[in-house]
Amino acid sequence: MQLSKRLAAELFGTFWLVLGGCGSAVLAANFAGPVHGLGIGFVGVSLAFGLTVLTMAYAIGHISGCHLNPAVSVGLTVAGRFPARDLVPYIAAQVIGAVLGALVLSLIASGKPGFDLVASGFASNGYGERSPGHYSLVAAFICEVVMTGFFLFVILGATDKRAPAGFAPIAIGLCLTLIHLISIPVTNTSVNPARSTGPALFVGGAAVDQLWMFWVAPIIGAVIAGVLYPLVAESRRGNSQELALD
Amino acid sequence: MQLSKRLAAELFGTFWLVLGGCGSAVLAANFAGPVHGLGIGFVGVSLAFGLTVLTMAYAIGHISGCHLNPAVSVGLTVAGRFPARDLVPYIAAQVIGAVLGALVLSLIASGKPGFDLVASGFASNGYGERSPGHYSLVAAFICEVVMTGFFLFVILGATDKRAPAGFAPIAIGLCLTLIHLISIPVTNTSVNPARSTGPALFVGGAAVDQLWMFWVAPIIGAVIAGVLYPLVAESRRGNSQELALD
Amino acid sequence: MQLSKRLAAELFGTFWLVLGGCGSAVLAANFAGPVHGLGIGFVGVSLAFGLTVLTMAYAIGHISGCHLNPAVSVGLTVAGRFPARDLVPYIAAQVIGAVLGALVLSLIASGKPGFDLVASGFASNGYGERSPGHYSLVAAFICEVVMTGFFLFVILGATDKRAPAGFAPIAIGLCLTLIHLISIPVTNTSVNPARSTGPALFVGGAAVDQLWMFWVAPIIGAVIAGVLYPLVAESRRGNSQELALD
Amino acid sequence: MQLSKRLAAELFGTFWLVLGGCGSAVLAANFAGPVHGLGIGFVGVSLAFGLTVLTMAYAIGHISGCHLNPAVSVGLTVAGRFPARDLVPYIAAQVIGAVLGALVLSLIASGKPGFDLVASGFASNGYGERSPGHYSLVAAFICEVVMTGFFLFVILGATDKRAPAGFAPIAIGLCLTLIHLISIPVTNTSVNPARSTGPALFVGGAAVDQLWMFWVAPIIGAVIAGVLYPLVAESRRGNSQELALD
Repeated sequence: MQLSKRLAAELFGTFWLVLGGCGSAVLAANFAGPVHGLGIGFVGVSLAFGLTVLTMAYAIGHISGCHLNPAVSVGLTVAGRFPARDLVPYIAAQVIGAVLGALVLSLIASGKPGFDLVASGFASNGYGERSPGHYSLVAAFICEVVMTGFFLFVILGATDKRAPAGFAPIAIGLCLTLIHLISIPVTNTSVNPARSTGPALFVGGAAVDQLWMFWVAPIIGAVIAGVLYPLVAESRRGNSQELALD
Repeated sequence: MQLSKRLAAELFGTFWLVLGGCGSAVLAANFAGPVHGLGIGFVGVSLAFGLTVLTMAYAIGHISGCHLNPAVSVGLTVAGRFPARDLVPYIAAQVIGAVLGALVLSLIASGKPGFDLVASGFASNGYGERSPGHYSLVAAFICEVVMTGFFLFVILGATDKRAPAGFAPIAIGLCLTLIHLISIPVTNTSVNPARSTGPALFVGGAAVDQLWMFWVAPIIGAVIAGVLYPLVAESRRGNSQELALD
Repeated sequence: MQLSKRLAAELFGTFWLVLGGCGSAVLAANFAGPVHGLGIGFVGVSLAFGLTVLTMAYAIGHISGCHLNPAVSVGLTVAGRFPARDLVPYIAAQVIGAVLGALVLSLIASGKPGFDLVASGFASNGYGERSPGHYSLVAAFICEVVMTGFFLFVILGATDKRAPAGFAPIAIGLCLTLIHLISIPVTNTSVNPARSTGPALFVGGAAVDQLWMFWVAPIIGAVIAGVLYPLVAESRRGNSQELALD
Repeated sequence: MQLSKRLAAELFGTFWLVLGGCGSAVLAANFAGPVHGLGIGFVGVSLAFGLTVLTMAYAIGHISGCHLNPAVSVGLTVAGRFPARDLVPYIAAQVIGAVLGALVLSLIASGKPGFDLVASGFASNGYGERSPGHYSLVAAFICEVVMTGFFLFVILGATDKRAPAGFAPIAIGLCLTLIHLISIPVTNTSVNPARSTGPALFVGGAAVDQLWMFWVAPIIGAVIAGVLYPLVAESRRGNSQELALD
């Protein structure tokens, strides 16, 4: 597959991740009802983020590998599963897709009378005063490192040649759901620098000031997992034996 | 398989989509409880719509392909995956199934003392005053185009010969769940002209007046995806190489 | 596999269906919390019922076929997929399992101070005054017939030789989840005479008086689907061609 | 695969189970919102626990078998599926992983102003006064025995050579979700002595005093299932015939 087509797939996929994940949070998390709240809450937002990845992994996995996330591309490169020469173009496509997804979301969301993008937070990530539960920078940093680390660990394991074929999109998508079920209160959950960048550019101000953390912490977590998984998973004789077992 | 049997399958399937999806909204979304609300809210309705497609795709995918949606049939035709001569019969079967599904739902729903079909909205789609969150026509239109476009993109990708076999019903059903998690507040979520037509005919009035939008926007989205997916997914040498890889 | 082992599997499986499905409703549907309700509501109960079938279908599908439901056994017999001579023993094992499941649930539930089994309803099914939303007998009857009919339709389709192998437990389990998302307010959802019988025997009184309906309606629905699915699914030349396609 | 790598996988996996499952409960179950509660409640916690197992089973199933639970290791040993000589090292790795998972969770959770680990309960298990619904010791004991028994039954069935390949992580993970949907109100759900030990050591006091029960009851349930499943599942001629069928 030519690089241009793979980049187009990454752009569309990350567009979908931001439009769907952040969109569910902005449009549907809070919604009153005649009897009780009808909004989808953190459970629904967690499900939505995971399903953006699950659906795209089946749709474009065979085109681009469906990373949709700079930290994922970096972690796969460290683990020797992705060529370093494609890293920068992939990350660029992901960030562009995320910004365009946030743009379309802003068009839809502003169709509601009284919508205030900045006051809503627009599903941006944050720590301290900008954390949903006011978690400190240190707690938020640890959380993003650990969550992204396990995300990559699951990605590397579920796409291992010895794992059952075809199920990786379920494992990986639902892992992102799980990560959101745990950590939305802490940082609004990033584990994905592109996903953080899209909404932050529209919110501006403190959202942009805190953006560094959602590039640094996820990438640190991804690098750790990219080093660790092969150590745990591969036998002493290394890949050669693994290939021989196929 | 004869066309008559494929049409019967489409009719049953779209019946199930409307009875199950709209039924969950009408019967179970709002329900008080002794301690807190017990109703399924938008999360439950989203899950229900997706599961109607997931279950039917495993049940009748081998009979009719399980479109259950005129926009899906159009998008597959544009992408060269469905013969144009079957388009009109498929759409007719889908609309008949949707109307019959809404009919049975009205029979069940009116068994509750005090049920008022028109006042309830009967899970019909709408924009402006008839949007759950009062979203404007423009926002609603963009939303339906984009959501249907990604729906078709996922359908085309997940049923691509290079995607893992057997998983498409999971990807497609849960994509419809995802789309509802995002967009119920905007239009009550259509992405399916047949699903919109069934309840609207029972509600009448403004629901019918707005019905045009839920035919036009989803079909535009489906056509865009039907053009776009092959451009992204197919290598320069086209289908011939793709076939050679099988 | 000997009949005795298949019956043991059906007994265990139906025990799990009642303990898990009804148990989630009795123990966890309503639960207050410090900030908002923590109980699982109808969404959680719907998920629980479906997961009892999904988990058991993977655990004992290769032993007994995992019916766990007299209506399923009847529908499969009508469709020519299950030998009539095993019908009575299967139904007996299912009812015994359901009663034992309800017995263990009563032991656990009564460990809570102030628990009143009869006043709680104990997840029994009902219509009219005993319907959660006070739906009439006619509406409840239609609902149970239609829901069980589609349940069997999905079972017959997902276990068809032409459907993708291995996925039927997902389609069937999540179909039961979907049915609950729609119809808990109507009848507390049966579609399974054994599941209805277990709790009703412990509640007594009106719950037992209404039990006839939860045998008659599901079995009617199952018979209709058992006749209909082969008509829709099989080509004119019948099973012989279908086999030739394998 | 060398034992050291399998133990590392078990340690990481149980770390993830405690961080993810208990983390979702501690960080996200209760969360207020501007319109209604946004917290994930018992449904979200149930989903999170199940997804820790589902994701890890795809990630490390091919390395260590992904037990993550001393009761699982014991039950598999009783059923003849796991060598007794590896039992003690596996359990040690699981307990260490659980304690480290609870440690990292405590670091994140204490980043919230005003967080009181002991007063929060820190997702520890309990009975009587320490049961979420104040269930008695007897009810809690029965519940843990029965839930763990069915958990092992599903594990043994879904990993049986005759069950469809590749789906076991879905069946097993969602079985743990189901168990939580039923039994969080009773004991906060253990079915896993390592998961109980991690948080209890941080809470101390009564949480540690009650810890014996969450070792004894799950292991009894696992042993019963380890004896029972082979009796139900295997034909009279035993494994030899089963192997011949492969």
